[in-house]
Amino acid sequence: MICNLTISADGYSAGLNQTEERPFGDDGGDGWADKLHAWYSESSEENREEIDQILAAKAFIMGRNMFGPVRGEWDRPWIGWWGDNPPYHAPVFVLTHHAREPQPMEGGTTFHFVTDGIESALTRAREAAGDGDVAIMGGATTINQYLAAGLIDELRLHIVPLTLGAGTRLFEGVPPLKLEQVKSHSASLVTHVTYRVLS
Amino acid sequence: MICNLTISADGYSAGLNQTEERPFGDDGGDGWADKLHAWYSESSEENREEIDQILAAKAFIMGRNMFGPVRGEWDRPWIGWWGDNPPYHAPVFVLTHHAREPQPMEGGTTFHFVTDGIESALTRAREAAGDGDVAIMGGATTINQYLAAGLIDELRLHIVPLTLGAGTRLFEGVPPLKLEQVKSHSASLVTHVTYRVLS
Ligand SMILES: NC(=O)c1ccc[n+]([C@@H]2O[C@H](COP(=O)([O-])OP(=O)(O)OC[C@H]3O[C@@H](n4cnc5c(N)ncnc54)[C@H](OP(=O)(O)O)[C@@H]3O)[C@@H](O)[C@H]2O)c1
Ligand SMILES: NC(=O)c1ccc[n+]([C@@H]2O[C@H](COP(=O)([O-])OP(=O)(O)OC[C@H]3O[C@@H](n4cnc5c(N)ncnc54)[C@H](OP(=O)(O)O)[C@@H]3O)[C@@H](O)[C@H]2O)c1
Repeated sequence: MICNLTISADGYSAGLNQTEERPFGDDGGDGWADKLHAWYSESSEENREEIDQILAAKAFIMGRNMFGPVRGEWDRPWIGWWGDNPPYHAPVFVLTHHAREPQPMEGGTTFHFVTDGIESALTRAREAAGDGDVAIMGGATTINQYLAAGLIDELRLHIVPLTLGAGTRLFEGVPPLKLEQVKSHSASLVTHVTYRVLS
Repeated sequence: MICNLTISADGYSAGLNQTEERPFGDDGGDGWADKLHAWYSESSEENREEIDQILAAKAFIMGRNMFGPVRGEWDRPWIGWWGDNPPYHAPVFVLTHHAREPQPMEGGTTFHFVTDGIESALTRAREAAGDGDVAIMGGATTINQYLAAGLIDELRLHIVPLTLGAGTRLFEGVPPLKLEQVKSHSASLVTHVTYRVLS
């Protein structure tokens, strides 16, 4: 299974204190959200291959915090950060401890809320994807669980130039991994590195 | 000032439990020391530019743990890991809390032991380097102090494919940094990324 993540040079995928106004958390004053978005903006021809790969999957998995800022009970309406027609155009399985009915959107995206763990989410995503790929989108809390369980084959990191110093960190609490560097592509705003996870 | 460091994909420059037998500490069983050394082996034409840059400096700074495995008092002879003729061919300033006489070596290297802190080491290294560059060699404990003090202009990271999960980590405890990606070069065993530290 493939996993994409944009990280700071010190390995964080989100700063502390995520809110609706600052979905990626504190940024140390250096435009973390801007840098994070810049490399995959629509106009970014330089990074076209990486962008196309991310959205080519036929089912997606994400953590509840990536889906939105609501914590605890679903006590207010929230349909994700992406408007009425999200860019996934496929089923998205959202890990959470708080059950919720599926949320269909325009353009083929449906958000399904999975309360029985990462393996269940993966099974359901694989079924939904058929012959297509499943992509784990993040955040790091979700990815680290899949890494620790040995369920990720390929890790595509997009390293942006700044450090956050604190937040949710990729690889935190994950036992040592053997990796093979499959590809590495230097763009102007970001360095892309693809690892195969060997064990 | 320039700083080179080889790090794992999760940002460590050394594993836990450094010993004389395992100068880079625990490696999670995946040949961390081998991977670390592989990219700058003499025969590595692919990485020639990065290797030449490291050794071009006219004075070097390192921490006492990079210099060797002796801790506490200097209670046994130790002249570094690099044999009688170390690859520096210039003064090397070793940060430590334990005073020791300078240690001259063949080929122009002299190890000086600096007990009055990072700024003193830098002043002495700058004097020794004259018009040449000063290079901070590591480990991460030393580099993080210089980063936190705003004394590093350029950070050249060499990212090798494995994770360590624990050890001494670059950027640990360093406040958020604004970086500019100056260059990034993908070799087969390693990804080199050069950052300018903006603040
Ligand atoms: N840099 C990037 O490329 C990138 C990518 C994705 C996201 N992000 C950012 O990362 C942040 C979110 O990441 P995160 O690491 O904080 O969280 P996350 O992985 O998105 O979500 C974690 C939450 O998902 C639920 N969850 C996770 N595993 C579960 C399990 N096994 N069983 C049941 N529920 C589970 C829990 O929510 P409940 O217990 O509350 O239900 C948990 O608190 C956001 O700021 C987002 O914008 C960045
Ligand atoms: N990956 C790489 O490229 C790379 C590069 C270099 C080193 N390494 C590895 O990293 C490890 C060493 O790194 P490290 O981070 O553990 O330690 P380090 O930075 O090499 O050395 C730390 C030690 O230096 C002394 N020191 C540091 N700052 C000082 C200050 N301001 N004043 C006085 N003394 C000071 C202290 O020793 P005392 O208090 O005992 O005197 C301290 O414990 C080794 O395993 C080495 O092989 C890897």
